[in-house]
Amino acid sequence: MSGGPVLEALEALSLVDHHCHGVVTADLSRQEFEDLITEGGSWPGSSSFDSPVGVAVRRHCAPLLDLPRHASADEYLARRSGLGPREVHRRLLAAAGTGVFCVDTGYAPERLSTPAELAVAAGGTAYEVVRLESVAESVAARGVEPGEYADGFRVAALEAVRRPGVVAVKSVAAYRTGFDLDPARPSDAQVTEAARHWLAGGGGRLADPVLVRHLLWTAVDLGLPLQLHVGLGDNDIRLHRSDPAHLTDWLHLTAGTIPVLLLHCWPYQRQAAYLATVFEQVHLDVGLALHFVGPARSRAVLEEALEITPFRKLLYSSDAYGVAEFHFLGALAFRRGLAGLLQDRVDSDELDLPDALRVAEWAGAHNARQVYRLPGTS
Amino acid sequence: MSGGPVLEALEALSLVDHHCHGVVTADLSRQEFEDLITEGGSWPGSSSFDSPVGVAVRRHCAPLLDLPRHASADEYLARRSGLGPREVHRRLLAAAGTGVFCVDTGYAPERLSTPAELAVAAGGTAYEVVRLESVAESVAARGVEPGEYADGFRVAALEAVRRPGVVAVKSVAAYRTGFDLDPARPSDAQVTEAARHWLAGGGGRLADPVLVRHLLWTAVDLGLPLQLHVGLGDNDIRLHRSDPAHLTDWLHLTAGTIPVLLLHCWPYQRQAAYLATVFEQVHLDVGLALHFVGPARSRAVLEEALEITPFRKLLYSSDAYGVAEFHFLGALAFRRGLAGLLQDRVDSDELDLPDALRVAEWAGAHNARQVYRLPGTS
Amino acid sequence: MSGGPVLEALEALSLVDHHCHGVVTADLSRQEFEDLITEGGSWPGSSSFDSPVGVAVRRHCAPLLDLPRHASADEYLARRSGLGPREVHRRLLAAAGTGVFCVDTGYAPERLSTPAELAVAAGGTAYEVVRLESVAESVAARGVEPGEYADGFRVAALEAVRRPGVVAVKSVAAYRTGFDLDPARPSDAQVTEAARHWLAGGGGRLADPVLVRHLLWTAVDLGLPLQLHVGLGDNDIRLHRSDPAHLTDWLHLTAGTIPVLLLHCWPYQRQAAYLATVFEQVHLDVGLALHFVGPARSRAVLEEALEITPFRKLLYSSDAYGVAEFHFLGALAFRRGLAGLLQDRVDSDELDLPDALRVAEWAGAHNARQVYRLPGTS
Repeated sequence: MSGGPVLEALEALSLVDHHCHGVVTADLSRQEFEDLITEGGSWPGSSSFDSPVGVAVRRHCAPLLDLPRHASADEYLARRSGLGPREVHRRLLAAAGTGVFCVDTGYAPERLSTPAELAVAAGGTAYEVVRLESVAESVAARGVEPGEYADGFRVAALEAVRRPGVVAVKSVAAYRTGFDLDPARPSDAQVTEAARHWLAGGGGRLADPVLVRHLLWTAVDLGLPLQLHVGLGDNDIRLHRSDPAHLTDWLHLTAGTIPVLLLHCWPYQRQAAYLATVFEQVHLDVGLALHFVGPARSRAVLEEALEITPFRKLLYSSDAYGVAEFHFLGALAFRRGLAGLLQDRVDSDELDLPDALRVAEWAGAHNARQVYRLPGTS
Repeated sequence: MSGGPVLEALEALSLVDHHCHGVVTADLSRQEFEDLITEGGSWPGSSSFDSPVGVAVRRHCAPLLDLPRHASADEYLARRSGLGPREVHRRLLAAAGTGVFCVDTGYAPERLSTPAELAVAAGGTAYEVVRLESVAESVAARGVEPGEYADGFRVAALEAVRRPGVVAVKSVAAYRTGFDLDPARPSDAQVTEAARHWLAGGGGRLADPVLVRHLLWTAVDLGLPLQLHVGLGDNDIRLHRSDPAHLTDWLHLTAGTIPVLLLHCWPYQRQAAYLATVFEQVHLDVGLALHFVGPARSRAVLEEALEITPFRKLLYSSDAYGVAEFHFLGALAFRRGLAGLLQDRVDSDELDLPDALRVAEWAGAHNARQVYRLPGTS
Repeated sequence: MSGGPVLEALEALSLVDHHCHGVVTADLSRQEFEDLITEGGSWPGSSSFDSPVGVAVRRHCAPLLDLPRHASADEYLARRSGLGPREVHRRLLAAAGTGVFCVDTGYAPERLSTPAELAVAAGGTAYEVVRLESVAESVAARGVEPGEYADGFRVAALEAVRRPGVVAVKSVAAYRTGFDLDPARPSDAQVTEAARHWLAGGGGRLADPVLVRHLLWTAVDLGLPLQLHVGLGDNDIRLHRSDPAHLTDWLHLTAGTIPVLLLHCWPYQRQAAYLATVFEQVHLDVGLALHFVGPARSRAVLEEALEITPFRKLLYSSDAYGVAEFHFLGALAFRRGLAGLLQDRVDSDELDLPDALRVAEWAGAHNARQVYRLPGTS
């Protein structure tokens, strides 16, 4: 990685991480840490460190814990425990150079830091993203009649998004049904019938296609930007059904309403870029992929994401979950990847330096500020 | 971009652009120009210039209008208007170094230059490509009985392709239904029934799956090479349904009949390359993608397109529409991208220079001359 | 291709080629050779040498036959015939540096070398992979009642895998139906009914979806690692239906049973990498693609395959069939591609050299030894 003015500018830029999660506040056992740094699991006879992301942790995070680059997994985990979670988070979050976090609070099988706690640890600002499936499932858990579900969900969602600091909603429809859904808004009768079936089974995980469609259309009614998980995730995903091209008809029907943010997208970053090019409301990031592929490949993924994408449509996210290593690595991989590709274009005179600096600032902060109407938006 | 003998050869080679459109003959307002240089639209608060293709226009076209490299959009548009469309077209087309244009004349919401006008402006030769959907729709517009539609379409298509200078037909089935169609030739009764439904609705946009299949099979009967739009386009496409792998069964059924040219293909260039490798009749290009990704990424797209493709199967097209900037940028991005990848293989001794020069000449001109049986074919 | 310690280590490493075929033992005519070096065919007016793989043969194999690099196809074929198949195989296999071959013996339209013959020619060891479709089809060919088919197939498969040296089974379900199948184990009644239909038609090519599912579940019962052809192949494939993401539900149902090896995978190497990341039992290689894309692009394909893949999940295979050129080119392209990407990461300090050497050794030999429990496994 060579330096140059674009990297300097990106290193000086306070990033807006428009989609991430909190960190586990408790100290982590080796097993727990290994489980958190993979989308798979920790399997007998192997270590999550034997992977691109494991290598990146040892290379880039170890020095922040006063260890040599490429410290062993054992050394890393011992030092991590020795410092304690609070100090580890403080160091890694400070090194991330992220000023604003938009935190998805709807998935927390472990005790995670709240947005406010994350903001304090990072010395930044945090906003909240409401996961709509969690809202819907809590409505079912509280008990509701099938015919009241649609209203109950809408009211609960409105209450959730009116809390201070909420800037967006999110759906994990990609996990629940995929995007190959009927794009039309379901009728009241269809929703009631589907809710009847779901509630009769005790509610729980919302995966009924009619109710997922209804959830997406409720997001339109809420009027806030909608984040959609796309592509890479754990083995609960059917990857091919999360190809965002399946959203095309729904995007036609909802054009002129809410901004749509396609998250992660790998390996469908080109499909996402196509949608961001032809639909005014669509934006994308390659979060999650950034730390999993590491700085060694983040540029390659960004190159594909940016092949045709208008410069106002790319955002930065880490999609970090659980460990602050990922908040840091996402930022590092984004800065190095984007700087590398822009600087090379400047060096080969394909791009003017002022333009390159503008693209960097837009993708790293400004585009997110605009979409979410964050304070400080010019 | 380093130079070297392959780039020199490609710069000296008069290209055959086997698929493009005319240029808008009128002077263009800023809004009109911005609309023409994107597959999206020009959206409030943003500019089409803030994109990879906008950057490429300012970098590579500005000097041809006597402006500095990376001139601003304002400067560019002012100078463009000052010179007037005729002079702008003349300069850009001359710089393209394209000797032969195969012009799709079937899509012209604006007044476009005719093939003859394009040829004159470029100092080259132009042939015509007949868009079959336009022929079918004009048959419906003239009025036809459902039972006469098949005959009427065949006769009209035959008349159209017998006009002097017609070398191929084209289908935009990708836009209308996608390629996930029943591959079999529909029966007369099926065609009549589908035509009845279509005509009862007043004709117009042909998007009935039976009639689209019938159109593809009529192309087989016509005997001319068939160009198929694949992948990247405006938001009328359902990208995943344009994956050319869906054509496999139809390609089996039509093997031994007509050449099939897969146009653009991005992001399915590898799928297209696979088909070109295993079906004698299939060829591909990465037109359209070339100017949208610009010289900064055209090599990467060509690398994927050429990973396994036999060297006689890659063709050049710009798929330029409306603005001569794209006829020029397509040629530039093709030459630089192909030269870069071939020269590097020569430099690392993976490829002999005479072989590299042969591949360049084949892809840039010879393969198209052969497929379309153009004069001057050796 | 620069050198460096990683390439040195990979050149010194005796590879395990975990999936390949034998070589044609007879002398080959030009036509026969050209047919063997393409997944297409040899078409009038063109030569299979005019392709990336043809260029690689002339560049890298010619010197092993005492010819200059980039010798012409004519010179190459003349010299190849002059030396005779035995000597050609000996030289190319020796140069491959492969110590262990796992040979798929279930596809042999030509007379191919047996695993033992291949081992002798290469100075290595050979194991056998049993192609289950061939077993099933031979059960049908011997005559069986529909109600006895399931038992007959199981018994025949058990007999086949109990032969000495058998280490795995393989399925070409990708060719027969694709992977978009009902993932559930079919009932006995369903199997009998499907067998009735198949046998009534005279047996032959097994392509019934129920029987293909039954075959995959029989593989689970056999308990050996299962190799699955994925992606690139001849035109008998419907490429999109071989996207391995379609296997997700089946992988959930069979988790905890047998290792699954995704072969070739191009152009779905990222989808395969995702599955290898989230399912303990899944492994992948990019065999077949290696020689078809050649050393000029093998690194690019490996980069994508390794973006997120745990280091214990990547294996080496050539998938060479018929000509020893491919056993050699696969090994060459694998070594150079993997060494190039690892060495660059070492040089940019993204990866420690000992880690790089470990990844190289794992992918080139150790991972396969573990999965197949080969002698010498540490």
